[in-house]
Amino acid sequence: MSGRSDVRPGEVAIELPPSYDAGIYFIGRIRTPFKSRAECPKNTAESDAVGRVELDPLYAAGLEDLALYSHLWLLYWMNQARRDLVQQAPAHLGHTRGTFALRSPVRPNPIALAAVQLIGVEGMTLTVRKVDCIDGTPLLDIKPYFASTDCFPDATRP
Amino acid sequence: MSGRSDVRPGEVAIELPPSYDAGIYFIGRIRTPFKSRAECPKNTAESDAVGRVELDPLYAAGLEDLALYSHLWLLYWMNQARRDLVQQAPAHLGHTRGTFALRSPVRPNPIALAAVQLIGVEGMTLTVRKVDCIDGTPLLDIKPYFASTDCFPDATRP
Repeated sequence: MSGRSDVRPGEVAIELPPSYDAGIYFIGRIRTPFKSRAECPKNTAESDAVGRVELDPLYAAGLEDLALYSHLWLLYWMNQARRDLVQQAPAHLGHTRGTFALRSPVRPNPIALAAVQLIGVEGMTLTVRKVDCIDGTPLLDIKPYFASTDCFPDATRP
Repeated sequence: MSGRSDVRPGEVAIELPPSYDAGIYFIGRIRTPFKSRAECPKNTAESDAVGRVELDPLYAAGLEDLALYSHLWLLYWMNQARRDLVQQAPAHLGHTRGTFALRSPVRPNPIALAAVQLIGVEGMTLTVRKVDCIDGTPLLDIKPYFASTDCFPDATRP
C-alpha cells in the first residue's frame, strides 16, 4: 500500500472501518509481461498482451466447460493499491473525480474487473489475451462473459 | 450458507482453505423488490426492475461525477451462497459444469457482477434499472461501465 505522501492536491482520504465484513480467497495468480505498475497498459482496451491464468489445483474441477466461451471476466485483487481515497485526481484527467466514477485500482475493495479473450485451457492454466495487470496479481474469480447481460454498446461516458 | 443436503447428483464440493487471504468491506446495500432467491430474476438481462443502491455515508464523496455515466457495474456479495462447489448442476442446464463456466452465485468468492442502467443519483442513493439480487444484498463496489473495455457483442457461448 502506498504512503500518504502519494495523495495529490484535491484528493480525499477517509479512515476505513476498523474491521472487515467478509473474507476472500486468492484462487490463483495472473502471469503477465508487466513487472511494475508503470509497465502496465492503462486498461484492457489498450492491451493486446497475452498472459496466463494459473489456477490453484484445489479449484481445478471448476474449469470444466470453460473452453466453450470466447471471452471471460477475470476478477483480481489489486494488492498494491491503497484503499482509503474516495476522491482521486488521475494524471490523465487533470481534476478530481469520485472513486466510484473511476476504474482506478485505488478503492475501498480493490477488486479489478477485466474482460479478456480466451485463447486456450490446458490443465489448470488458461491462456488469455488483453491482460493489463502486474505479473503475479492474485486471482479472485473467473466468470464467463455473456453478451446478453454484459454488453452495452450505447453506454455513454463523459 | 446452504447445507450439504443441497448438493445435487454430480456436483463436487471441496474443502476450502482454513483462512482467508484478504478482507473486504461492505460499503452499502442494494434495495430491490426481491425478498428471496426464489423471487429473483435469473439475471439482469431478464430484469427490468428498478432498485436503489444505498451507499454508506463514509464513502459519499466517492460518488462525485458518477451521474455522468449511463451504465454502472455493481459488485456485490452473495452472502446466502455456499462457497465450496467447484462443479454444479444448475436446474436449467441438466448436467454439471465447472463453477468458473457459470454465473451462479455459488463460487469460492461469491462476488456478483451486474451491469445496470443509472437512472439518477440523489445524495448517497442511486436509482438503477435491471437489478437482479435479493433486497439488502451487501455492496462491494461501483464502477463506471466503459463500452471500450467491457462490451464484446461478438462474444460466443455454448
